Amino acid sequence: MSDIQRPEARTPRGFIDRRARDLVAERKILTAVSAIYERYGFEPLETPAFEYADALGKFLPDADRPNEGVFALQDDPDTDSGQWMALRYDLTAPLARFAAQNWETLPKPFRRYAYGPVWRNEKPGPGRFREFVQCDADTVGSARPEADAEIIAMAAEGLVAAGVPAGAAILKINSRKLLNGLMASAGVADDGQKLAVLRAVDKLDRLGPEGVRLLLGEGRLDESGAFTKGAGLSAAAAERVLAFTEAGAGRGDTLGQLANVIGGSAEGDEGLAELAAIDAALTSLGVGAAQAVFDPSVVRGLEYYTGAVFEAELLLDATDEKGQPVRFGSVGGGGRYDDLVARFTGERTPATGFSFGVSRLAAALRAAGKDAASDVRGPVVVIVFDQARMADYFAVAGELRAAGLPAEVYLGQSGMKAQMKYADRRLSPAAVIIGEDEFAAGTATVKDLDLGRELAKGVTDNAAWRAERPGQATVARSELVATIKKILDPRP
Amino acid sequence: MSDIQRPEARTPRGFIDRRARDLVAERKILTAVSAIYERYGFEPLETPAFEYADALGKFLPDADRPNEGVFALQDDPDTDSGQWMALRYDLTAPLARFAAQNWETLPKPFRRYAYGPVWRNEKPGPGRFREFVQCDADTVGSARPEADAEIIAMAAEGLVAAGVPAGAAILKINSRKLLNGLMASAGVADDGQKLAVLRAVDKLDRLGPEGVRLLLGEGRLDESGAFTKGAGLSAAAAERVLAFTEAGAGRGDTLGQLANVIGGSAEGDEGLAELAAIDAALTSLGVGAAQAVFDPSVVRGLEYYTGAVFEAELLLDATDEKGQPVRFGSVGGGGRYDDLVARFTGERTPATGFSFGVSRLAAALRAAGKDAASDVRGPVVVIVFDQARMADYFAVAGELRAAGLPAEVYLGQSGMKAQMKYADRRLSPAAVIIGEDEFAAGTATVKDLDLGRELAKGVTDNAAWRAERPGQATVARSELVATIKKILDPRP
Repeated sequence: MSDIQRPEARTPRGFIDRRARDLVAERKILTAVSAIYERYGFEPLETPAFEYADALGKFLPDADRPNEGVFALQDDPDTDSGQWMALRYDLTAPLARFAAQNWETLPKPFRRYAYGPVWRNEKPGPGRFREFVQCDADTVGSARPEADAEIIAMAAEGLVAAGVPAGAAILKINSRKLLNGLMASAGVADDGQKLAVLRAVDKLDRLGPEGVRLLLGEGRLDESGAFTKGAGLSAAAAERVLAFTEAGAGRGDTLGQLANVIGGSAEGDEGLAELAAIDAALTSLGVGAAQAVFDPSVVRGLEYYTGAVFEAELLLDATDEKGQPVRFGSVGGGGRYDDLVARFTGERTPATGFSFGVSRLAAALRAAGKDAASDVRGPVVVIVFDQARMADYFAVAGELRAAGLPAEVYLGQSGMKAQMKYADRRLSPAAVIIGEDEFAAGTATVKDLDLGRELAKGVTDNAAWRAERPGQATVARSELVATIKKILDPRP
Repeated sequence: MSDIQRPEARTPRGFIDRRARDLVAERKILTAVSAIYERYGFEPLETPAFEYADALGKFLPDADRPNEGVFALQDDPDTDSGQWMALRYDLTAPLARFAAQNWETLPKPFRRYAYGPVWRNEKPGPGRFREFVQCDADTVGSARPEADAEIIAMAAEGLVAAGVPAGAAILKINSRKLLNGLMASAGVADDGQKLAVLRAVDKLDRLGPEGVRLLLGEGRLDESGAFTKGAGLSAAAAERVLAFTEAGAGRGDTLGQLANVIGGSAEGDEGLAELAAIDAALTSLGVGAAQAVFDPSVVRGLEYYTGAVFEAELLLDATDEKGQPVRFGSVGGGGRYDDLVARFTGERTPATGFSFGVSRLAAALRAAGKDAASDVRGPVVVIVFDQARMADYFAVAGELRAAGLPAEVYLGQSGMKAQMKYADRRLSPAAVIIGEDEFAAGTATVKDLDLGRELAKGVTDNAAWRAERPGQATVARSELVATIKKILDPRP
């Protein structure tokens, strides 16, 4: 291969390799959340990575830019009439296609969960990748608010099961119908103005009421001197919108406040009645205001949602790689989207769902020190002391595996020291050394690598520990499994 | 949406949706095989779906057509210099890229397992898709034959764990070095002739020795009248090749036979010594000739492999949808590929691995009636008898879920009969009916839907069964969970 130009080994921009620590955390979330979905009667579904571009449609849930952000390619023009295909950007659009395709034969309502990677052809940034994992549950074919409530309850249970400490996450609920009712009562008619109002409300967190008031009116000049044109509402209409967002986050009390602001608009009243039904169902499912609240400032997506909208916010304190505090914010969201299936069938089909941003949630838990990293362990390494004894070393490793202990024989060519270093880098709990003496005596020497790492961290009382954990011990072969199990779980 | 042209809801050609039955079977395989890989000390790794096209290279393991069969697209020319990216076609090429990229910091040998979808831009056919799931384990950085043996042992254990009955699968092992030694002893020098010989040997299963003899010589005329040009070996050389393939499939005895045919060629002897070491290691791992044999007729891929090659063959009798018998053949394979990492680094890096064709294995087990379909169960359905009692029905479902029973409240708008039909289509074990009488009496009526399905199949002795399983019973609310558990597991 001397004169061949060699490619550089690198991942494409915005894509990453993930190793044990990331994967253990992510799989833990997927397993826990899937189990909840199944317990609620949702069946698994996996759609392909590709959809035909026309079937995928132009909806990106968090963007109002049509037809942007997907990875698309043209199928073979000779055999497939050159149709454009695109990688799914979420799990909802493929579900809408699946539901439309199979509507006649599906049990209805159709309840499915799904997880897997989705792809967005966007500019990557820190913590922002072009491939990430979502885990969704959706009910298609039920217009009942109880269907929304159930989706919210599963999200709340999912956060706990994923390892989020109690009180460290909140589900925020709003309704597109309330927002529409608000528009009606504030005299907002055309779609452009409506969009501008929603955009302004969406900035409440960042700009506060004063900033939002400006954006609802003529416009706002930011610190850099850039001017953002406002929605052009009258002062009275803007106050009405602000009063709406200031109803505060709660359950029954919030609904009462909101009724004062938007009561009377037909769509607003419909939204209020649905939220009241969601409140009742959540309560009977044991989901209280500490886990899920109505929050009128939640907007979520600008097209797409038609009723209730949900957002899961993480309240964990976390720090980034540089030790700076990070606010993770949203780790999932969803809502009611009654128009997606109609794209195919022409018939409005009620649907509601929630999507966990699994990659994001895993990253947040890791940054907050709440991930499952301690579950990442290497295997016991059987050291190759005597090359002629490979078969014996293999038998020892087999014995450990049969006892449920991950184990391997070192298969490189290096000497003892490098082998011990290898075992340490694998985060092995122990190395097993069997040389001529041990073979003759029917014994094995076990080196406690966990102890070495504990001592290196300086977290243990050396003297007391050393008495109980000698670091290295030669034991009878019949004691080998028990000795290693004691290292893995040293509690008396 | 009246005047909008609606897209047709369909999957792209060669791609499929997979529902519970497929997924339960596939996940069972992935979980079982991953557990084995971890027990052998392999760590999980997930590389992205995309690689830069130059990093992915031209190797397709089972094809000798360079640069074909991948889904490729060009990245944004403005921000990413328009580099071509392609979806991975297997999990080995991305591993080679990863190993090259991180070689300095990896523990060596580097042992990783991976699973996930791979994509091939090929013509789809029956049972042949453009997206399918593989599950691989590889050791990079060990030239030891014991590393190969371990990979083979894991494959053998994996087949059992995946649910393949004892004796219904066999691992076939050969060595590219033996084949090269054979070429040397048969006087084959140039690469074109070598390729023709390998292709001829690869057809032994299909054409038998007579057909292969023709392909080794001048060529073969098939039934349709088409002529395939042969490798052009002399009659003596062709005999030698045939004698090699006829050494038969076994362990020690086969090695002895092969030594008679190709002993003396340096590369052949090296191959024989490696296979002997693999034999010894397999034996010490408890893998006998019923699970893994040397089979000189195994070729596997034409470029790519540099030493031992493995193939997992399923011997199950299976029938297709039309009831025709199907031979599933290969459900996985692998081997030693010492050149893949060198594409990047210029340094030969020994590597060996095995890949389960998980989708294929799942399909084969299903066709043979050995899949986990019986694990696919619907939830208990709580029937909505009285719309005003939704909160109570939700509480009942919550009670069942708390007891570990998947359960849901029916959330559609239909009446009793449609609700029962829904529950039956979901494969629910039971429906729970609570009307006015039951609410008043603190009871619940449980309908045994499993019984209904059993009776419909005619598999049970109606009279005896009916006495014990009444089909429908009204029980105290405190007995609800126990009553349903009894339906799920009716054994006394």
